Amino acid sequence: MEKIISIFSERLLKVNRLILKKLDSSIPLISEIAEYILSSGGKRLRPLLALSSAKLLNYNGPDKDICLAAAVELIHTATLLHDDVVDKSNKRRNKITANEVWGNEPSILVGDFLFSRAFELMVDTDSLEVLKTLSKASCKISEGEMKQLIFQNNINTSKSDYIKIIKGKTAELFSAACKAGAIISTNNSDEIKSLEKFGKELGISYQLIDDALDYQYENYNFDKSIGDDFKDGKISYPIIISWGKSNTEEKKFWERVIVEQKQNSNDFSKAIDLINKHQGIEKTYELASIHAEKAIDSLSIFKNSNIKESLIEVANVSLSRLN
Amino acid sequence: MEKIISIFSERLLKVNRLILKKLDSSIPLISEIAEYILSSGGKRLRPLLALSSAKLLNYNGPDKDICLAAAVELIHTATLLHDDVVDKSNKRRNKITANEVWGNEPSILVGDFLFSRAFELMVDTDSLEVLKTLSKASCKISEGEMKQLIFQNNINTSKSDYIKIIKGKTAELFSAACKAGAIISTNNSDEIKSLEKFGKELGISYQLIDDALDYQYENYNFDKSIGDDFKDGKISYPIIISWGKSNTEEKKFWERVIVEQKQNSNDFSKAIDLINKHQGIEKTYELASIHAEKAIDSLSIFKNSNIKESLIEVANVSLSRLN
Repeated sequence: MEKIISIFSERLLKVNRLILKKLDSSIPLISEIAEYILSSGGKRLRPLLALSSAKLLNYNGPDKDICLAAAVELIHTATLLHDDVVDKSNKRRNKITANEVWGNEPSILVGDFLFSRAFELMVDTDSLEVLKTLSKASCKISEGEMKQLIFQNNINTSKSDYIKIIKGKTAELFSAACKAGAIISTNNSDEIKSLEKFGKELGISYQLIDDALDYQYENYNFDKSIGDDFKDGKISYPIIISWGKSNTEEKKFWERVIVEQKQNSNDFSKAIDLINKHQGIEKTYELASIHAEKAIDSLSIFKNSNIKESLIEVANVSLSRLN
Repeated sequence: MEKIISIFSERLLKVNRLILKKLDSSIPLISEIAEYILSSGGKRLRPLLALSSAKLLNYNGPDKDICLAAAVELIHTATLLHDDVVDKSNKRRNKITANEVWGNEPSILVGDFLFSRAFELMVDTDSLEVLKTLSKASCKISEGEMKQLIFQNNINTSKSDYIKIIKGKTAELFSAACKAGAIISTNNSDEIKSLEKFGKELGISYQLIDDALDYQYENYNFDKSIGDDFKDGKISYPIIISWGKSNTEEKKFWERVIVEQKQNSNDFSKAIDLINKHQGIEKTYELASIHAEKAIDSLSIFKNSNIKESLIEVANVSLSRLN
């Protein structure tokens, strides 16, 4: 990701400054919690997508791309705060979660605050179309999170339901960031649709890799701790694959640890063994590759450029997180 | 409130239909929870304020007032869902709360969903000014809720801090509903400001009465259960008054029940006695009257009409809830 980060280093600084400004509140604790989570080492991937999409379409207006990038990051941060409460998480990116430090109540309210601030920023893009895109995406995110909650501990989750979940919880915001970056830059609906598609496919690919990383000892300490999905009984693609190929005894294992949530200290290792036995990680990587390829294909209408190359690089780097 | 409800009965039906439409989701549980809370007997006061403000300024465009009214109610409903989680409430309007029925997690996510839907509706008003007004109000609501959380169990809360809390958690949305109703109807900034002020003062007055009602046995079964604020150690005006006039022994009582949260079964009765001894309810009513008067005064720039009269009636009826 070095290439894209270096291209946008100056604009990312502006985004970060704007975000910090928007965290200002008459209630110091709100700023404190918001700064805590926003400084916890996120990669600013969604802002980068918004900035890149605008730049790809030669956006050269005032700083609407900055407002948009900041807004997208604030929506993302708001959902992280709420997710950690919903998942009862105590660690994120190797840092204690806000709900663990301050309790659930402030996390819920600061999430709401950031969400509102995001909409304030979107208003500054002067584009009702941007607001429409991002409010719709926000609905879809909540729907994705809700679907994930409903399917938690359901070992019979279908591939199709899993894909719907990750489309909602991850791909919608990737897609909306790209689409909105395009909207502020052009009226060409084909270009807007292509970038929207790029974001969507990239988001699916990204989340598949994320879900595989949760079962990779090698990636412990990488960006997040591993085993979180397993502990929560969250169904992801590696489990779906393994479950589908399991024999009777293996099915009993998955039912105990995922459905009944009865887990012993060595069950996570056993889960990894079963996933590996049934090529759960390889199959996940394969599917992620297909979606990364689709993402890259959707850029074909754009002529070659530094920015296009760096967007392609994002899709490839996302894949390469899984060695 | 009969007068205003009868004037807007047809438009309120439209608002309700639009709200129901917006609760539609690919996830049935989202619709179920949202319908549950939205059908739990709310008075649709905020939508009425938006509709009345537009009507007072002779709004006769398409159904932007309906979109706005629905949006405002959805924001309100989203905050109720989150508040009940934050307050660990198990009852609202004599009905079991959503968090009690389905758990905290769905309540948080459905709140987020409704909030996003509200912004979708606002986009339909085609007015960036409306979006600006309501996103700003949403920030202030979160700040108000957060301030309330911070001052919970703090018996030394000042009158000024209390007023800031209720301005945030209640008056901001009243004010934004009125202001936005005006924005879609006129460019006259004096008229917009007057209605904004009306909503703000009405909201303060309304919340003061609400807080007094929480200590009135007579109003049990009225619209909400009583004693909730006391149980949670929430500081409201009646307590601030009583605390300020308490002798040493009485102060010990307040410290035990509010600060230490050690409450026995007859402490609520004792709290009511102490509040009554120090004219806590009368003083709250007095302050609410002053703000209701300010609300009514702010309408003075408008010529007499059916709608103006009914807005005045809302301010008076709000007061009269406290007999």
